[in-house]
Amino acid sequence: VQGAYSRAGVRPAGEIPGFGALLRRLAVTFTYPAPESRPVIDFGYYANVIPVTPELGVAISTDGVGTKILVAEALGKFDTIGIDCVAMNVNDVICVGAVPLTMVDYVAIESPSDDLLEQLGIGLAEGARLAGISIPGGELAQVPDMVRGIRPGSGVDLVGTCIGTVPLDRVLTGSRLVAGDALIGLASSGIHSNGLTLARRHLTRLEEVVPELGCSVGEELLKPTRIYAPYFRRLVASEVDLKALLHITGDGFLNLSRVRADVSFEIDDLPEVPPVFGLIQASGEIPDEDMFLVFNMGIGLVAVVPEQQAARAVELARDAGYEARLIGTVTGEPGRKVYLRPRGLVGEAGRFRRD
Amino acid sequence: VQGAYSRAGVRPAGEIPGFGALLRRLAVTFTYPAPESRPVIDFGYYANVIPVTPELGVAISTDGVGTKILVAEALGKFDTIGIDCVAMNVNDVICVGAVPLTMVDYVAIESPSDDLLEQLGIGLAEGARLAGISIPGGELAQVPDMVRGIRPGSGVDLVGTCIGTVPLDRVLTGSRLVAGDALIGLASSGIHSNGLTLARRHLTRLEEVVPELGCSVGEELLKPTRIYAPYFRRLVASEVDLKALLHITGDGFLNLSRVRADVSFEIDDLPEVPPVFGLIQASGEIPDEDMFLVFNMGIGLVAVVPEQQAARAVELARDAGYEARLIGTVTGEPGRKVYLRPRGLVGEAGRFRRD
Repeated sequence: VQGAYSRAGVRPAGEIPGFGALLRRLAVTFTYPAPESRPVIDFGYYANVIPVTPELGVAISTDGVGTKILVAEALGKFDTIGIDCVAMNVNDVICVGAVPLTMVDYVAIESPSDDLLEQLGIGLAEGARLAGISIPGGELAQVPDMVRGIRPGSGVDLVGTCIGTVPLDRVLTGSRLVAGDALIGLASSGIHSNGLTLARRHLTRLEEVVPELGCSVGEELLKPTRIYAPYFRRLVASEVDLKALLHITGDGFLNLSRVRADVSFEIDDLPEVPPVFGLIQASGEIPDEDMFLVFNMGIGLVAVVPEQQAARAVELARDAGYEARLIGTVTGEPGRKVYLRPRGLVGEAGRFRRD
Repeated sequence: VQGAYSRAGVRPAGEIPGFGALLRRLAVTFTYPAPESRPVIDFGYYANVIPVTPELGVAISTDGVGTKILVAEALGKFDTIGIDCVAMNVNDVICVGAVPLTMVDYVAIESPSDDLLEQLGIGLAEGARLAGISIPGGELAQVPDMVRGIRPGSGVDLVGTCIGTVPLDRVLTGSRLVAGDALIGLASSGIHSNGLTLARRHLTRLEEVVPELGCSVGEELLKPTRIYAPYFRRLVASEVDLKALLHITGDGFLNLSRVRADVSFEIDDLPEVPPVFGLIQASGEIPDEDMFLVFNMGIGLVAVVPEQQAARAVELARDAGYEARLIGTVTGEPGRKVYLRPRGLVGEAGRFRRD
């Protein structure tokens, strides 16, 4: 049980008290609409899809920026966090094969100010531009008794919900994966919007400039999450048979195991881990098993394509301005295990362990 | 400037510092999607609509339950607040003429517990049942540094985003209203999910049982927001020419002025104001001008229909189990003024004043 409900930050979702009970209560709602309007995916994937015509589905997904907003508060810089909000939602919607169209946002604030809200708007608009979507409405809640931040009055929460369209016969859930399919990894821009709670625990001096980062710790942690919608649009317009798209969020490479096909994954060529992750790992003496569970470790999106189209899928990514490479292959081993060969790790049942 | 962005709780949205700047930043995003996928409504209505085929639009709206959750915390009773979350979103989506299909939820918690999350699920599922929608995904964020409640560890925020479908030639924005059209008022169940901040300020003894309420103050404030989707479904299936549907939320009857036609509203037959509002008004010595701006005062939804179909529209509501009555008419006076004749009030420019 993970998925749209998986990125819960502090603990793996499956271990949150009451999480299973919540899902069981919501599962019954799948039958409340008329049969032709019922969701087509079970809990646990990146987004769900609702049929709106006999041929067309609308994908919907919601996500917030989490404790990355506390870094924005610490730096007093709110003009990029809206990009993260768009990215986290758009990157989930493309994973079910949907073209993102629009997003609404929810802002909860302790104390509004001209500067804060305009800066949020700047980031949201820039994210929308990068993703090619509109933001045609939202909700602004002044709830000083309900939000808090790093100092009195600074509290803010930022959440989005994105929708897009997908032909019902092209919904992606990774059900068509077969042994030999290629895993294409696209570089992340850094920490993205997952693992900030752990990162902040160990990197407390946000103002410190670190030579290997080329900027301060705070600036590095605040770098906007990369938006992969332009790559998705190119893939869809190409001859490549896209079989799965996997946003690497909380749970790291274990996100691969969300696919519906009963296969496993061999990752044998990981790119060099970006310096920010090395810094966190060294500061917190965090084992590889946890680092690869909490962080993206340099890969923000994985596309699964037929072996013979791997080179083309990499080329399309590079044409769109992304660093991309073949990082591994699908294998016929059942169990949805994720082998990280360069690190000697294997992931299954929500954990990585030494292989 | 109000609308999807209007229900901001503490201050009228137009007076929130930075709110105008935020909207200006987001307005440019309307042009980012391809022309055939751009939002069809300006900011300020209950929901927006995105075309997904040449004939069909998808409505989208987001809203939270706000400080009503603090009442739930005080009573330690979380199994109905999910109904409010569904209601606030579904009631907005029907106002643009859309049949609600699904909702995703966002839960931010300070400290998860079995009981809390299951109770939230019970309410969400009951709301979904009443509205005939699914809840096929959501996001659970454990963010103890970002939320707070009435006591350490109790903090929670609950937000939904609902979508529905509407033929593009049947999108409701109140543009077809003409003098003589009838205003049908449907009873609210009580305070619904607006004005709780003001109510809590003046009704501090939540455990006190008040004879005229027939329950404790806390129980009264926690009564779930009424869901009007079943009425909407009956109207759409009927011969009634529905011209506007207006959810009475923050800004009270001034919500009528959201309509796009340049008309005004004569309300000449208000039902007796439910006791909870009298209690708040007496406790806080609050003038009528503010009561009618902050609270629904007994009417949760207004339908606008041709004069000769008023009786039928009332009958359909009663058949569906709602108390309903003709409360007034549309007039040809320009300016979108709202006259509350029984109280001698007129509302315009975001305020009620003595007429």
